[in-house]
Amino acid sequence: MTDIISSTQNPKIKSLIALQQKSSERRKQGLFCVEGQRELQHCLEAGMEIDTIFCCPELLHSTSADSTLDIENVKTCRGTYEVTENVYSKIAYRGGTEGLVAEVRVPVRPLSSLTLSDKALIVVVESVEKPGNLGAILRSADAAGADAVIVCDPLTDLYNPNLIRSSIGAIFTVPCIACTSDECISFLKSHGIRILTAQLQDSQLYYETDMTHATAIVMGTEATGLTDAWRKAADAHIRIPMNGRLDSLNVSVSAAILLFEAVRQRRL
Amino acid sequence: MTDIISSTQNPKIKSLIALQQKSSERRKQGLFCVEGQRELQHCLEAGMEIDTIFCCPELLHSTSADSTLDIENVKTCRGTYEVTENVYSKIAYRGGTEGLVAEVRVPVRPLSSLTLSDKALIVVVESVEKPGNLGAILRSADAAGADAVIVCDPLTDLYNPNLIRSSIGAIFTVPCIACTSDECISFLKSHGIRILTAQLQDSQLYYETDMTHATAIVMGTEATGLTDAWRKAADAHIRIPMNGRLDSLNVSVSAAILLFEAVRQRRL
Repeated sequence: MTDIISSTQNPKIKSLIALQQKSSERRKQGLFCVEGQRELQHCLEAGMEIDTIFCCPELLHSTSADSTLDIENVKTCRGTYEVTENVYSKIAYRGGTEGLVAEVRVPVRPLSSLTLSDKALIVVVESVEKPGNLGAILRSADAAGADAVIVCDPLTDLYNPNLIRSSIGAIFTVPCIACTSDECISFLKSHGIRILTAQLQDSQLYYETDMTHATAIVMGTEATGLTDAWRKAADAHIRIPMNGRLDSLNVSVSAAILLFEAVRQRRL
Repeated sequence: MTDIISSTQNPKIKSLIALQQKSSERRKQGLFCVEGQRELQHCLEAGMEIDTIFCCPELLHSTSADSTLDIENVKTCRGTYEVTENVYSKIAYRGGTEGLVAEVRVPVRPLSSLTLSDKALIVVVESVEKPGNLGAILRSADAAGADAVIVCDPLTDLYNPNLIRSSIGAIFTVPCIACTSDECISFLKSHGIRILTAQLQDSQLYYETDMTHATAIVMGTEATGLTDAWRKAADAHIRIPMNGRLDSLNVSVSAAILLFEAVRQRRL
């Protein structure tokens, strides 16, 4: 530990809070925030670059988190700072029980950086609005052993605190890439990956659709569905049957049902 | 309309806000709150008793909600009140765009009131903590055409505003009943419904489990799983394979994957 910060007016603390609150600040600084020991562990294992660590020793040692993270030995670019409990309560995004917040460098990840398995399984989400939904999709993608989540024309940045929290670390365990729909379609086509778009119109039942080959499952927004570019690029349109009175499922629930149908068919 | 309310200090408004905020108040008054035109429509179709309606005409008519609800003709026990936009902004739970909040009588629903289909499909959740998760489970249960959602030993009441909101009305379209685990186990056994408990230990893969007969899918909490009573009562323990780095799925996502496996097997 190099220093103890006891004021919320400290410029480092003000800068951290700005990173948590504003996507524009994350873009400008090229940094985002990670909170919690387990999350930082996943972040390190993913090879990300830790810029700064803020920790509150009283909370860090009182927690029973099942992490073996040794803060003192984590390499950072700009140091590890101790903060008082008062300061920590201001920078903790989710109730502040774990005593650890880090600033991490936003990774540069073009589509070309993806290494895909033989029978790739990819989730594509177009213009997802809610960071929490994208976090939940990442969590399901991790469980399904998916190769990647690709976010096309995102309306939120990939490092929104709600997204990171709801992914419970899956943002680090599953490669997650943002690009345009056109780029994504070209990429999938050139890699021979079948494009299955989730839509109710002109579609076949998802469980009657072969997902044993390299497959991308493409989800639109709950409100407006997919754009024409995706509908036209599709190898098949698939639907989840709606047997009730309401007309739609949550996008992250739909993604999970489709992902695990691929898991079932592949007997993973 | 019988009256216009322009003050947030009006006793009716204070009582409404108390209902939104406190489960103890909902229990005491035997009422809960429903917001939004589509939600109230589902509520009416479910035969629930509307106690009071508060509406803000300016907002009601400016919305493009795809509802055909005719507020003036909805029967209430204690009347329909017009409120000013200022008052409405205080009683709107989710941002206040639809101009409609109602107080509805909590229905009395014992397990014995359930009418089950021949090959019943039921979701049981034990001690679910987060109202939002239960709402999402109800939404998936509606889509899967499930017969009921049974909540055992609930830590939240079934009429929490977060639950109602996240269910987008499924709390009205799917019978939802609270009881003890013992009551529920007796009920399922006496009706010959197979009990499948979701758990990682000593379990078989969910897609290798027959769900074509009358089936109850039983989910525990994400933190502690199911109690022994359920593990012992089970006809089979089933698991969703975890192929990633993290160790659990969101409980509502798990429920949806299991429900739709039953749908697939039954070719609904």
